[in-house]
Amino acid sequence: MNPLVGIVMGSDSDWPVMEKCAEKLKEFDVPYEARILSAHRTPDAALDYAATAKDRGLRVLIGAAGGAAHLAGVLASKTDLPVLAVPMPSKHLQGLDSLLSMVQMPAGIPVAAFAIGDAGAVNAALFSVAILALDDFGLADKLAAFRARQTEKVLAKTLPGHP
Amino acid sequence: MNPLVGIVMGSDSDWPVMEKCAEKLKEFDVPYEARILSAHRTPDAALDYAATAKDRGLRVLIGAAGGAAHLAGVLASKTDLPVLAVPMPSKHLQGLDSLLSMVQMPAGIPVAAFAIGDAGAVNAALFSVAILALDDFGLADKLAAFRARQTEKVLAKTLPGHP
Amino acid sequence: MNPLVGIVMGSDSDWPVMEKCAEKLKEFDVPYEARILSAHRTPDAALDYAATAKDRGLRVLIGAAGGAAHLAGVLASKTDLPVLAVPMPSKHLQGLDSLLSMVQMPAGIPVAAFAIGDAGAVNAALFSVAILALDDFGLADKLAAFRARQTEKVLAKTLPGHP
Amino acid sequence: MNPLVGIVMGSDSDWPVMEKCAEKLKEFDVPYEARILSAHRTPDAALDYAATAKDRGLRVLIGAAGGAAHLAGVLASKTDLPVLAVPMPSKHLQGLDSLLSMVQMPAGIPVAAFAIGDAGAVNAALFSVAILALDDFGLADKLAAFRARQTEKVLAKTLPGHP
Amino acid sequence: MNPLVGIVMGSDSDWPVMEKCAEKLKEFDVPYEARILSAHRTPDAALDYAATAKDRGLRVLIGAAGGAAHLAGVLASKTDLPVLAVPMPSKHLQGLDSLLSMVQMPAGIPVAAFAIGDAGAVNAALFSVAILALDDFGLADKLAAFRARQTEKVLAKTLPGHP
Amino acid sequence: MNPLVGIVMGSDSDWPVMEKCAEKLKEFDVPYEARILSAHRTPDAALDYAATAKDRGLRVLIGAAGGAAHLAGVLASKTDLPVLAVPMPSKHLQGLDSLLSMVQMPAGIPVAAFAIGDAGAVNAALFSVAILALDDFGLADKLAAFRARQTEKVLAKTLPGHP
Amino acid sequence: MNPLVGIVMGSDSDWPVMEKCAEKLKEFDVPYEARILSAHRTPDAALDYAATAKDRGLRVLIGAAGGAAHLAGVLASKTDLPVLAVPMPSKHLQGLDSLLSMVQMPAGIPVAAFAIGDAGAVNAALFSVAILALDDFGLADKLAAFRARQTEKVLAKTLPGHP
Amino acid sequence: MNPLVGIVMGSDSDWPVMEKCAEKLKEFDVPYEARILSAHRTPDAALDYAATAKDRGLRVLIGAAGGAAHLAGVLASKTDLPVLAVPMPSKHLQGLDSLLSMVQMPAGIPVAAFAIGDAGAVNAALFSVAILALDDFGLADKLAAFRARQTEKVLAKTLPGHP
Repeated sequence: MNPLVGIVMGSDSDWPVMEKCAEKLKEFDVPYEARILSAHRTPDAALDYAATAKDRGLRVLIGAAGGAAHLAGVLASKTDLPVLAVPMPSKHLQGLDSLLSMVQMPAGIPVAAFAIGDAGAVNAALFSVAILALDDFGLADKLAAFRARQTEKVLAKTLPGHP
Repeated sequence: MNPLVGIVMGSDSDWPVMEKCAEKLKEFDVPYEARILSAHRTPDAALDYAATAKDRGLRVLIGAAGGAAHLAGVLASKTDLPVLAVPMPSKHLQGLDSLLSMVQMPAGIPVAAFAIGDAGAVNAALFSVAILALDDFGLADKLAAFRARQTEKVLAKTLPGHP
Repeated sequence: MNPLVGIVMGSDSDWPVMEKCAEKLKEFDVPYEARILSAHRTPDAALDYAATAKDRGLRVLIGAAGGAAHLAGVLASKTDLPVLAVPMPSKHLQGLDSLLSMVQMPAGIPVAAFAIGDAGAVNAALFSVAILALDDFGLADKLAAFRARQTEKVLAKTLPGHP
Repeated sequence: MNPLVGIVMGSDSDWPVMEKCAEKLKEFDVPYEARILSAHRTPDAALDYAATAKDRGLRVLIGAAGGAAHLAGVLASKTDLPVLAVPMPSKHLQGLDSLLSMVQMPAGIPVAAFAIGDAGAVNAALFSVAILALDDFGLADKLAAFRARQTEKVLAKTLPGHP
Repeated sequence: MNPLVGIVMGSDSDWPVMEKCAEKLKEFDVPYEARILSAHRTPDAALDYAATAKDRGLRVLIGAAGGAAHLAGVLASKTDLPVLAVPMPSKHLQGLDSLLSMVQMPAGIPVAAFAIGDAGAVNAALFSVAILALDDFGLADKLAAFRARQTEKVLAKTLPGHP
Repeated sequence: MNPLVGIVMGSDSDWPVMEKCAEKLKEFDVPYEARILSAHRTPDAALDYAATAKDRGLRVLIGAAGGAAHLAGVLASKTDLPVLAVPMPSKHLQGLDSLLSMVQMPAGIPVAAFAIGDAGAVNAALFSVAILALDDFGLADKLAAFRARQTEKVLAKTLPGHP
Repeated sequence: MNPLVGIVMGSDSDWPVMEKCAEKLKEFDVPYEARILSAHRTPDAALDYAATAKDRGLRVLIGAAGGAAHLAGVLASKTDLPVLAVPMPSKHLQGLDSLLSMVQMPAGIPVAAFAIGDAGAVNAALFSVAILALDDFGLADKLAAFRARQTEKVLAKTLPGHP
Repeated sequence: MNPLVGIVMGSDSDWPVMEKCAEKLKEFDVPYEARILSAHRTPDAALDYAATAKDRGLRVLIGAAGGAAHLAGVLASKTDLPVLAVPMPSKHLQGLDSLLSMVQMPAGIPVAAFAIGDAGAVNAALFSVAILALDDFGLADKLAAFRARQTEKVLAKTLPGHP
């Protein structure tokens, strides 16, 4: 089935984080593809990926990168599809550099940023589902059910030794 | 015409910034509504707004707030529509507090964060357009045209005294 | 005995920290209850908890959360009881995000913030005791005794090899 | 009437901010006193103020200071009354230094921190009211009424040109 | 005369800062060109500029941008000429975002970062001169003379009322 | 022999760091004493320590603390001896909170701050030696010899596989 | 009279701040000299200044600089006199860069850092006085008197409309 | 063969990071030398190294240091060769102090800063190669080949379980 979401990451070292994004999409049966493309080391391939994404049927792109994290912004420069960004935790500055490099985009080229690391990876998947669910009733139902289950799970939790 | 985008801000002092969001939506003829609702001072109204947004035909919500900026997260807790967040510049910490309060959402409830201030306000509008354009060919054409014009405008710029 | 303090945390992963808060309350024989309620994943339950807290006899609420830590602010939006906030250490930004999301509340809805992590958990308990002791002479005596013992303990400490 | 709240600030340059705290207390008819006492320049007076506060009938202390803002912690070291802290905006670091100097107290001596500047000043007053209202039904009613009016005010706001 | 240094900036609002870079190059009679090209709004033109820079005789590129400042990294992705980066002061975060977006480049694609704002603009020019002076004795002499004069100027300064 | 330097730390958990300060003083045969005194938990003892320090023959005080690190400032409020401050690494904010709480003292009560952790502990010792050496020729000679040896040690270092 | 304190600043633009240091020394009749010497633009002169300071009778050096503020560290590398550092407010990062460049010295070469800007300038003077007062009874008396007057001044302050 | 690049580091503890710089230069057969010289502990040797670098045939200097990282700036003060800076990760502030101490140089003495840690070490080597390649066709070819191989390597990467 044709992928609807394209997950792009700058390095295969980002996969342990972004795998959580992929798994969440799989949980919703949203077809996706995952690629390693670097804004800096493979600029042509990254730009070409973005430029052709719409025609290949993709509807949402997710860029994940760390440090001077330009990937999502570079993708957004070549497509008008919604582009999401997941800042990777960086070795020394804990992802604050990745976050600022992604979220502080200039007016004109929007990139939607999520939390640093795992939480951001999961939420980028859920946000993609929310976008796709706008015109897919089946997916909308799945999303509503997921949210309801999530609420129930938290409510069912108890603390050790507390009734 | 029924609004498709709901712009919600925590205080009317946020309007000079969020007006740029509204103007950009108007430029694309995207019907929107703008409301002042505070996560803290009018929690019921804010939650009710989010809970009923989908049924009222809204497809994207944009929350703008400053400081301990909970508005977008609070909206997202009551809807599974895409929720966007624009961090307001804050008086003392320049919006870094607003940004972190918005972008660092826990896994499960996604909020898409944009840049602090004007750039974020404009980009939240453009990102809403990108979402809506996924199943509106006319809007997709407008967005492509906007992006092309934007590119041309930058290319046409010259520096004083430089040929 | 009816709980006077309600400890609410966004996730059971916060319990190892907040257990220190609970233990300190127990040390003072202050009846408390501890709950897992998320501002984002269980908004209705969280709001309902706060809205009914006063009538159920609670006198102080303590909210603990990490990242975009909205819990204490959300509780405060639905009660005029004193609401205390303990910022959880976050995975990547060490709790600076949690702290700013809690302490930078807008004028009108006060939340009292304590230190990130264990120290904050203990101090939120001691501060609750200080509030309750205002009209409970027995508790006031216990608090004074605790403070005196604490002072003595520090004074009794010696450094290895230093007389 | 005997003051119940003691506002202490490190310098008279803090008054334009802390005046907002005083005004809010006055709005609730809570008797208060305001003093200039420096943790560093008048340590004896500051410590004596805290040590005698309880016996003089004070029930809440509010310390406001900037930079290496030790005042609230120093007050808390000599009383077991609830001590609140308002970080002053500082000339160069915008109050981030004041905030961290106040909120990061070690376990054992609690200080409740509020937002940097005006918002913190107002909220420290409201939080004092919330504490005092715990055993003052008249004040509790006033607080509830204030909160209700505040909600109404936000709900009544409209944006220029938006119905 | 064929330009040896290419100054590229993301917006004409960067010119008041980068003009100081241009003036310093002019002071050394180093031929340069200055262009407005945006990594995000004119990606093809920016990449093409970098890809053809070497063949057009350029020897050093200087990229200036603010916020999520990708320009220098994007240039570096398409050339192996030395690429210098000048972080622009940004409206809300004072250029800290620009700096981290530029300096934290991943291994493999080097970008040389200079100070935020005017100092960085001047130093990027002087550093370009230092590179070009490596095989241009005339320029090396000019640089040495500039440095000597600069030293003398500082030594000649006196403080009012101090001999 | 009468101690000339008083090392005061807020907690015995600071000793592994401050031991390096003590060892360095011992290396110079500077008599010192080390005490655990908390600005918050033992304010009277801490203030009394500072107030009597000069009369007991101490000439330099060194305060070490973490988080909302008031100890050095509190000592300085009660003595006009030179007071040095060593910011302890803190659990969550790595000592940035300790540093700002110590170095940002208001005009009028000086505290001399050193680096966070071990480096600061050693340098506070060396700085004490530098002060004491001003009127102790023997100590001045020892300090000069230490500095010369330190230089030699660095110069003698070689890198593996590099001649 | 032979200067005892040497104030060195990296640029004459630092004088409006450091003048407050000079004035405070003058207030205590401590002979001083003030020089403009840059660690970067006049390294030889700066190093020579430090290397000869002791023999010329100076007893304390104060280095003031901004940004990558190396001046105090460079002075300390060539003298074992006590070296004090005053971080200048910087144009974009408000002196946080200056502070970290000064205070985070490696073990072995101590530099004593004071607050950013005016407060640091005044306190560096007062700390110099405290050092010199160790063996100058007259100066010690003046310092004690200054501190006493300072305390009185704060105690004498009243707030408008507060008795 | 005469070294063209001089790698200077403040401490042998920096070698595990800077070895990656040396290895990258070796990969390009660029002759280099590596030295331990401290701006603070061996100022004369460091300055002499820089002052004589050009005459000894060096063409690029790379300074690596941590904390108050003055080394690169100190080298730059005595040479007009291009000076590169690699900020070392620091124990407590993760290299943010090192970065700011290096990159925020005042106008007049340029230092080119690279990323904190390993990435910066590798990129300083590659940037040196880029400078030297400007007039060395063989090296330029090697650099182009390295960049092409690097691109291919990224393109060849696949994710586990993803075609």
